[in-house]
Amino acid sequence: MKCKRCRKAAAAVDLPSHHSAFCPECFFVFFRRQVEEGIRKFSLLSPRDRVLVCVSGGKDSLVLWDILLDLGYDAEGLYIDLGIEGYSDRSREKVMAYAKSRGKEPIVVDLRREGVPIPEAAKRSRKEECAVCGTVKRYFFNRVAASRGFSVVATGHNLDDESARLLGNLMHWHRDHLARQHPLLPETGDGLVRKVKPLWRVSEMETAAYGFLKGIDYVTEECPMSFDATSLVYKEALSLLEEKMPGTRFNFYQGFLQSREGRGTESKGTFLNFSEEGPAAGGEEESGGAQAKCALCGAPSYTETCAFCRLKEKVGKGGRR
Amino acid sequence: MKCKRCRKAAAAVDLPSHHSAFCPECFFVFFRRQVEEGIRKFSLLSPRDRVLVCVSGGKDSLVLWDILLDLGYDAEGLYIDLGIEGYSDRSREKVMAYAKSRGKEPIVVDLRREGVPIPEAAKRSRKEECAVCGTVKRYFFNRVAASRGFSVVATGHNLDDESARLLGNLMHWHRDHLARQHPLLPETGDGLVRKVKPLWRVSEMETAAYGFLKGIDYVTEECPMSFDATSLVYKEALSLLEEKMPGTRFNFYQGFLQSREGRGTESKGTFLNFSEEGPAAGGEEESGGAQAKCALCGAPSYTETCAFCRLKEKVGKGGRR
Repeated sequence: MKCKRCRKAAAAVDLPSHHSAFCPECFFVFFRRQVEEGIRKFSLLSPRDRVLVCVSGGKDSLVLWDILLDLGYDAEGLYIDLGIEGYSDRSREKVMAYAKSRGKEPIVVDLRREGVPIPEAAKRSRKEECAVCGTVKRYFFNRVAASRGFSVVATGHNLDDESARLLGNLMHWHRDHLARQHPLLPETGDGLVRKVKPLWRVSEMETAAYGFLKGIDYVTEECPMSFDATSLVYKEALSLLEEKMPGTRFNFYQGFLQSREGRGTESKGTFLNFSEEGPAAGGEEESGGAQAKCALCGAPSYTETCAFCRLKEKVGKGGRR
Repeated sequence: MKCKRCRKAAAAVDLPSHHSAFCPECFFVFFRRQVEEGIRKFSLLSPRDRVLVCVSGGKDSLVLWDILLDLGYDAEGLYIDLGIEGYSDRSREKVMAYAKSRGKEPIVVDLRREGVPIPEAAKRSRKEECAVCGTVKRYFFNRVAASRGFSVVATGHNLDDESARLLGNLMHWHRDHLARQHPLLPETGDGLVRKVKPLWRVSEMETAAYGFLKGIDYVTEECPMSFDATSLVYKEALSLLEEKMPGTRFNFYQGFLQSREGRGTESKGTFLNFSEEGPAAGGEEESGGAQAKCALCGAPSYTETCAFCRLKEKVGKGGRR
């Protein structure tokens, strides 16, 4: 099959949801435009931004860093070493190698040195690994960005991630979570920096194809702590719908975002009236704006001590850093 | 395994979504209570109602008629013969046999005699069979109920049907459809009778088990016109989620109904503000209340002639009945 765009080279990437198939060069153009449109649509980034890209060593975050650099953004990488034996070392190597190839030096936070390596932190706090990991990562994303003068934090969540999260939120009608699900969480003015997801329009497959064709070397193994994650079930259900009805995933997530803005496809409807203040503010646990500061570390926090400091205390190596 | 209720008889029906398993007698009690609760929750029926039960010959509608009779409701059956060779004859036989076993005589509408057998009506109107069938059935449900003094029309839609419909509506963010999805569509005062779905709390499997254990003989074949129906894909996706997380289907649909009433599980949320006028009024195409009468047949209709009369005209055997 020939590329549907240049009609010369052989198609390398089949995109049933876009009724298309592209050669590598035309796919790069397509992918870049999708990301640019995703950024433009909600004004996620401006050329003056200093962007902190959270890189895990996986395909999504490295592709995000790569494309932001290609698009000319001032983008630095932040790698958080989770302290998971083997997996973390291999991930760090991929991040370092990629950074070097672009003449970059990533910022590294080592959770062992911070006293909260995920396996021990989860065990001692008796919390689920993924929940602990989320708390710790959100904490350092914001702390590093705020302390080093970044105007925005960018993460590599793609369309599959966001649509699966949306499906899970709808299955349980988690109104609070639904209210906060958006590619843009604006800064709050009291210390929480803006958070954006520039890859929200592109699928996992498209991101993987982009990484592969661009020769980006990434960690392919899943995190060993995240076995049997619920989000995988939602992804599986959506894959089933996507396979039978290509484009479902994108229409589902975009339709949700449009509904939030009160411009659904059916203007008559008054059924789903979303909050009119626009995207909710980001915050601890990705919640609404924080109102005070943590007594221990000074980070924005709803509670007297922030979730991270409470975790650190539980892990038993707490106190001042 | 023993029955979880009487702890004596062997369990015959396993219900992971209720963390339970029942012997036939206890399952009857459980199932009946579920239906009673479904009716009570939204005041679907009162003891003074004259109920017109739409029976197709399939398990759901015959089980509905059966349980409404057992619960003491004044319930008569309406069978619409769709004019589909073989399938319609076999369906009619099941309806007749069941009715006889309860000393009942169903009302029968024969679409061949009405000039709109579904296969020809679909072909001549160049519309999809299921769409034509829906228009025609809604028309006769309402016409028979109104002309024969029934206060309410009941259909056999179960939890699987309603949750699949909800998923489809959410996937496409059909706000109008979402606004009208409810087990209760009240009467409109201008000729549209109340429509209710008393089986909304029970799953397809539970309904099938009830029918089987009660010895109700029903048509098991699918309608030959409805191959590859999209709703089956949504059912499949939900089955996948239900299998991994028992109870998902019920929580999903019930959570939606609660959200509509502004009593979601998380009271803080202001994200999903549903219309406050309660369940939307039923109507042509299950839409909001009709405002005028069809010039040809006098049925409630938004448009000068109703959808049914327009269809009949297209089929070319139109005019007065």
